[in-house]
Amino acid sequence: MKTTILIHCPDQSGIISTVTSFIYRNGGNIIYIDQHVDKEAGVFFMRLESDFENNIPDISTLKQKFEEELAQPYQMEWSLYIGSKRPKMALWVSKYNHCLYDLLSRYNSGELEVEIPFILSNHPDLEYVAQQFGIPFFHVPVSKDTKEDAENEQLRLMDQYEIDFIVLARYMQIVTQKIIDRYPNKIINIHHSFLPAFAGAKPYHAAFERGVKIIGATSHYVTEELDAGPIIEQDVTTVSHSHNIKDFITKGRDLEKIVLSRAVKLHIRRKTMVYNNKTVIFT
Amino acid sequence: MKTTILIHCPDQSGIISTVTSFIYRNGGNIIYIDQHVDKEAGVFFMRLESDFENNIPDISTLKQKFEEELAQPYQMEWSLYIGSKRPKMALWVSKYNHCLYDLLSRYNSGELEVEIPFILSNHPDLEYVAQQFGIPFFHVPVSKDTKEDAENEQLRLMDQYEIDFIVLARYMQIVTQKIIDRYPNKIINIHHSFLPAFAGAKPYHAAFERGVKIIGATSHYVTEELDAGPIIEQDVTTVSHSHNIKDFITKGRDLEKIVLSRAVKLHIRRKTMVYNNKTVIFT
Amino acid sequence: MKTTILIHCPDQSGIISTVTSFIYRNGGNIIYIDQHVDKEAGVFFMRLESDFENNIPDISTLKQKFEEELAQPYQMEWSLYIGSKRPKMALWVSKYNHCLYDLLSRYNSGELEVEIPFILSNHPDLEYVAQQFGIPFFHVPVSKDTKEDAENEQLRLMDQYEIDFIVLARYMQIVTQKIIDRYPNKIINIHHSFLPAFAGAKPYHAAFERGVKIIGATSHYVTEELDAGPIIEQDVTTVSHSHNIKDFITKGRDLEKIVLSRAVKLHIRRKTMVYNNKTVIFT
Amino acid sequence: MKTTILIHCPDQSGIISTVTSFIYRNGGNIIYIDQHVDKEAGVFFMRLESDFENNIPDISTLKQKFEEELAQPYQMEWSLYIGSKRPKMALWVSKYNHCLYDLLSRYNSGELEVEIPFILSNHPDLEYVAQQFGIPFFHVPVSKDTKEDAENEQLRLMDQYEIDFIVLARYMQIVTQKIIDRYPNKIINIHHSFLPAFAGAKPYHAAFERGVKIIGATSHYVTEELDAGPIIEQDVTTVSHSHNIKDFITKGRDLEKIVLSRAVKLHIRRKTMVYNNKTVIFT
Repeated sequence: MKTTILIHCPDQSGIISTVTSFIYRNGGNIIYIDQHVDKEAGVFFMRLESDFENNIPDISTLKQKFEEELAQPYQMEWSLYIGSKRPKMALWVSKYNHCLYDLLSRYNSGELEVEIPFILSNHPDLEYVAQQFGIPFFHVPVSKDTKEDAENEQLRLMDQYEIDFIVLARYMQIVTQKIIDRYPNKIINIHHSFLPAFAGAKPYHAAFERGVKIIGATSHYVTEELDAGPIIEQDVTTVSHSHNIKDFITKGRDLEKIVLSRAVKLHIRRKTMVYNNKTVIFT
Repeated sequence: MKTTILIHCPDQSGIISTVTSFIYRNGGNIIYIDQHVDKEAGVFFMRLESDFENNIPDISTLKQKFEEELAQPYQMEWSLYIGSKRPKMALWVSKYNHCLYDLLSRYNSGELEVEIPFILSNHPDLEYVAQQFGIPFFHVPVSKDTKEDAENEQLRLMDQYEIDFIVLARYMQIVTQKIIDRYPNKIINIHHSFLPAFAGAKPYHAAFERGVKIIGATSHYVTEELDAGPIIEQDVTTVSHSHNIKDFITKGRDLEKIVLSRAVKLHIRRKTMVYNNKTVIFT
Repeated sequence: MKTTILIHCPDQSGIISTVTSFIYRNGGNIIYIDQHVDKEAGVFFMRLESDFENNIPDISTLKQKFEEELAQPYQMEWSLYIGSKRPKMALWVSKYNHCLYDLLSRYNSGELEVEIPFILSNHPDLEYVAQQFGIPFFHVPVSKDTKEDAENEQLRLMDQYEIDFIVLARYMQIVTQKIIDRYPNKIINIHHSFLPAFAGAKPYHAAFERGVKIIGATSHYVTEELDAGPIIEQDVTTVSHSHNIKDFITKGRDLEKIVLSRAVKLHIRRKTMVYNNKTVIFT
Repeated sequence: MKTTILIHCPDQSGIISTVTSFIYRNGGNIIYIDQHVDKEAGVFFMRLESDFENNIPDISTLKQKFEEELAQPYQMEWSLYIGSKRPKMALWVSKYNHCLYDLLSRYNSGELEVEIPFILSNHPDLEYVAQQFGIPFFHVPVSKDTKEDAENEQLRLMDQYEIDFIVLARYMQIVTQKIIDRYPNKIINIHHSFLPAFAGAKPYHAAFERGVKIIGATSHYVTEELDAGPIIEQDVTTVSHSHNIKDFITKGRDLEKIVLSRAVKLHIRRKTMVYNNKTVIFT
């Protein structure tokens, strides 16, 4: 049985050896350990992959021991994941198909260790892609008047399919606060600029207007403030005066795909931790 | 005799063939032609390298003909440079030596086709570098009270040495409007962020605070508005949670050097044109 | 009517102005001109986009004039393409779907200005992708005994569908000499290494074995010698000791997709010229 | 007292907790831990930074305990470094000054935590740079007839100045086997290609000939076989048909500087381990 444990707590002497000894005493072999100390904030972060090969422990007993022997004395916030359980990812889209196609073809070739119970959209346009890949598609239109109904329907679907996290694959609608609160650091967005430059609408137009020589894309967790959540992944590509806005958009699409898929993979592999509106990314 | 001609004018049919015919009729061979049309603005840009090998024309006659036959009918703004004349570049610095060392070692190895008549600084710290390379160093301190005197001294030096353009190699002082006006699109600055993100002071601190995964540097022509002039060159490098502010600064230094030196080279080779607060860069 | 003309010929004085004048005299407006001189080889290259807006010429007359007035006196090799005609691209695949999905989703979103008459494979595995996108799929198995039959069937299909160029989207079989001869500089391959390093089979394994810190992908025109044809496009990504061969393969897939699609786009837009087993790429 | 311990040994269960407990029991606080398992080879690698703040141990006792309690039972190869001791780096150069200037200006600004006792060259050309920076310069010419004398003089200087490692900053001469044997994995070379492509002489010429679209530089430890030692760092930059060999060389110089300086920093910080002619680089 493989497990992944994520921990953060106030930095103290001896944490690493205490935690590693705990794992060892309980029959686990540590496969991979990552840690980070934010010295300014005085916070310790750790990610531990362990293998309980021949000594499969009772999970709830293990968790209780961990809580009593480690989490409480060290004031840890922590979570433990069982390796074999695939998280359930909902894909939210609008009209652009490039990120959707990219994620689905990766899913199709076994690159993403998730289940995709459904695709949700505020427009009907991309139903055909869902059909190509045999995945349920739900059209939940959102207008000023139907906002609350839409939110309820979204939440109902999320509950019914026991969704673990949401990927906004160019979902062109603001996600409501209620949903953000229900899925803290579990909604991944792709913004088509190199944040914090060009937050908000029409970033490619703004980038063109400013005459930048490099454009970017940013994947981040969604928080209350628009395009201001913890950044998971960014990438850039060069542009020149010879590119018009349409070229920016086309070049940007390739960035969006790659940046979003990398962020999704990091999240699936539980390699991201959030603290102080920033991410610790264990790679 | 090699010449470089830069032109911009309202876009019209037939410009390219008219200009190329003019060169040919006057005994020149076109070595390299670059052009660009900004379709939105309706502006045509052109850069022409020609060789008047066996038929060295009288320059002032050539210029007059160009003005009458081409510039006036097509409403061109244009300039003609003689290839053999090296422009004179003033280096302005403060306390950081990395960009200065980088430019001087390139100059030293023949990579920059310029003359460097002097290095100017508002601090005495880097005089030793000037001495290492045998270049005159002028210390012009700037304080609230001496601002005007300093400006006058700066202008006097610029005039005395017939400076063509200024490179601010981490000059940590705002250049006065009078100097900007005297050297329009001829003052090259390096800003240590990926503009327009993190304009102004302490960009590495701001980038660290925001938790970005990529940092950058931007070289631009200095205009009235701080860090908002036409961008010549940008580049970026990746960072992670494991880098602290000092790491950002160290990694950033390498970017600053490379971005500034590229911008300086483009300017020296007359490969930059400015329009609408943006650059056309012919590479 | 928009046209693109590609020319290469011995370098001589006056070519640019002669060609641009020709276009102008025949009612065309030059939209974009690219040229290059290989000084060592003494060869001149040119790509001309022209718009014959109000004066649509008779194409065969235009071609004849060009041949007589320009091509013969300047010993040009040249070709003229009409902008509105989409080239016909055959996709050859084997078992990997990532490049296929990538190209088809770009095609689907209008990014590729081609027709795709069919997908051909030596294996039946990817027929389902062809079906997803509604494109005919032909399974032409290749074994030692059936090599000649397969080649005949391949050529028959190419002729029947009037294919202009072939994209080997991870076609894991050597293309026969007869087909290479029929489609000179018209077969685009993607090789999963940074050529010339790791030519031949299993490049990711070889790269892993050597302990490189960067892996790459290369798109090139297919010639007689394996993986040695003119390079169109290359890109790379970083790897580390923490990546195993499977990681190399996964990371490499993203490179292969992006590099192949860029090469295909350059070819479609007639931005590639081949000379001396190298490419001139006009961007 | 800060220490860095590097370990590699056959992979076994419980190593991490055993080592971390050892440090803790001996009064150390683990600041940073990096580990890697090469699963194919069955080898475990670890790098441990520890701080013995209030309990400064006797180093030789600590080493003896480590040897008995850990190294012997686990068959470890290991080394322990005291943080405060700066390694001594010899710079070997020939005629090109770019890498030398780059390293010296970094050294000058405090970026490299080393001592540089001397610069050695087989040519007198760069003595002026040594003088600029006030570092002793030794001219040790190498010819067919004087090879052995030169080697002896090189070794004598290395011994006299107690050199820890050598940086070949474009030293254009093959280092003798005797010296390689004396400094195993302690001689850092910069090769001006993306190895394994274009090993040997004139890599930029070979790259130009092949028509690559990307050129690179590689820093590696020197081993018996030319340009085939363990790779520490690589980087690349794009080129096009418009660049001639001189452009390749100029662009390449920037790569060489950055790649070499990164490799030197990794070595200084003891972040490199060598196994099976490959490196594990802890970043």
